[in-house]
Amino acid sequence: MAESSQFDLMILGAGPAGMTAGVYAARKQIKTVIISKDVGGQANWSSNVGNYPGYSSISGADLIGKFQEQLLEFDVTMVYGTVQTFEIPDGGFRATLSDGQSFVSRAAIMATGKSSRMLGVPGERQFVGKGVTYCATCDGPLFSGQTVAVVGGGNSGLDAAVQMMKICPKVYIVESTDSLRADEVMIDQVYGNAGVEILLSAAVKEIRGDQFVKSMVVEDRKTGESRELAVEGIIVEVGLQPNTTFGSQVLPLNAIGEVVINCGGETAVPGLFAAGDVTSVPHKQIIIAAGDGAKAALGAYSYLVRLPVDPDWGS
Amino acid sequence: MAESSQFDLMILGAGPAGMTAGVYAARKQIKTVIISKDVGGQANWSSNVGNYPGYSSISGADLIGKFQEQLLEFDVTMVYGTVQTFEIPDGGFRATLSDGQSFVSRAAIMATGKSSRMLGVPGERQFVGKGVTYCATCDGPLFSGQTVAVVGGGNSGLDAAVQMMKICPKVYIVESTDSLRADEVMIDQVYGNAGVEILLSAAVKEIRGDQFVKSMVVEDRKTGESRELAVEGIIVEVGLQPNTTFGSQVLPLNAIGEVVINCGGETAVPGLFAAGDVTSVPHKQIIIAAGDGAKAALGAYSYLVRLPVDPDWGS
Repeated sequence: MAESSQFDLMILGAGPAGMTAGVYAARKQIKTVIISKDVGGQANWSSNVGNYPGYSSISGADLIGKFQEQLLEFDVTMVYGTVQTFEIPDGGFRATLSDGQSFVSRAAIMATGKSSRMLGVPGERQFVGKGVTYCATCDGPLFSGQTVAVVGGGNSGLDAAVQMMKICPKVYIVESTDSLRADEVMIDQVYGNAGVEILLSAAVKEIRGDQFVKSMVVEDRKTGESRELAVEGIIVEVGLQPNTTFGSQVLPLNAIGEVVINCGGETAVPGLFAAGDVTSVPHKQIIIAAGDGAKAALGAYSYLVRLPVDPDWGS
Repeated sequence: MAESSQFDLMILGAGPAGMTAGVYAARKQIKTVIISKDVGGQANWSSNVGNYPGYSSISGADLIGKFQEQLLEFDVTMVYGTVQTFEIPDGGFRATLSDGQSFVSRAAIMATGKSSRMLGVPGERQFVGKGVTYCATCDGPLFSGQTVAVVGGGNSGLDAAVQMMKICPKVYIVESTDSLRADEVMIDQVYGNAGVEILLSAAVKEIRGDQFVKSMVVEDRKTGESRELAVEGIIVEVGLQPNTTFGSQVLPLNAIGEVVINCGGETAVPGLFAAGDVTSVPHKQIIIAAGDGAKAALGAYSYLVRLPVDPDWGS
């Protein structure tokens, strides 16, 4: 095996959580490497972030640019690559990238985020940020007064629908199975609202538009009939996939693949911390990821300060 | 009793946690009042914040200005005043201010922060932000290469000293009792560092300077002898006082007066949330307060959405 590069702290992921952890670690003069396939992750997708404190209105990409600018002021090693395996050998952590590079560290922070499940229909990619969003809390207010569709009839979908029905005259809920799979109290609210139309057993076939979304084609799975819904916004809530596959054998994950942490960002593995969308924290927000990234880095600092240094470690 | 103003959500405190909670609540169209004696709280004291993601370098006061500007775009009622009593009547919360105004709400977020214990010596107030700081993590890097004193020999003081000894040639630790009261591993580190001088049984008597701090007068409590230490920075770590006295009878507090929360910002009282420095979260940082403020507001939203509305409530 090729020699591994050694660090005190390894941060996997360079979204808001990972970059904030990097800034905090660097300010504590911890020898840190950040490994990520990109910078910013999902935050880049938000056309307008209005709920990051300190910026009344900024695009996700611009906000990520500010995070990155700040991080680059510090002495943090940044490595672009895809983690293939994550292991927990005695007394540390090892990440091996798909290009064969290997990194070991005494502490680690998982901040690899989540990926939205996409519908996988024609038009979807083209209209991301142009009417198609995967986050009602982030982008919902942009559609005030317009007609929107929420795809997904689970709790996340109905949460989105309840938000949207307060500010939109017409909200479609499009669910692929034959019933809504959410809390009763949520279901009662959407059924009780005159502006909400619920389509069950409905499969999204295509998203259409020009500059922005104009409509969505939905097929009734029972009759096979198609219908074109005129909508200006489409909120896709068909689930998220935590980015933990590379370490699913050793990471402490919950039933849906999220890294389980306590309030301090600690996992059950000593020296292993996590922050941001990849964790069991229910709310997926930039400011929350950043705050928890700081907690994880400060936790890692306390861990490293108290850890006896084994002179033979990593050799 | 005078009639109370009714809201869905009452936020006590307008620091980073309270203002972020306000933005999140307003975006969810929750009828919200924020009650605070000031805007910004302790964050205003930081002369240079370098660890708030999105701003490489900004004064605490300027950052707070940005938070406030953003909050003012939303429909949130802001009330300036001092809370005298906080009560938890059936089905809600009531705050009464010292001027007699009264507010009731169905949910509440405590975000009243902490106040640093001050030394109470001549010169201290005059040099706050001009060499005197109460936060090593915030302001420590400003003193790189200089001579500093850390006042306080507990874990917080030694944490600060360990940080400073890495970037400063000389660090005094000034402790009023006759021993350091911290973890052994921390004590070992400061005793093992040639640049650290520890003064026990030492009482700070005065802080001197012109534009900025130049020295600190310390008295040996055993011999009564005074000594003037030439220092450019003074980090005061003699404890913090959570601002919870107005509700200490009903709030779920820990032994040091902090509001106990779980990872979602919930307290043991249904509908009562908390965020920021006032809580049991160990790290006191602007970004952490803001992230947890968002969690608390989203938790309050979920609580309110699911709460059956009693038509007679509050009457």
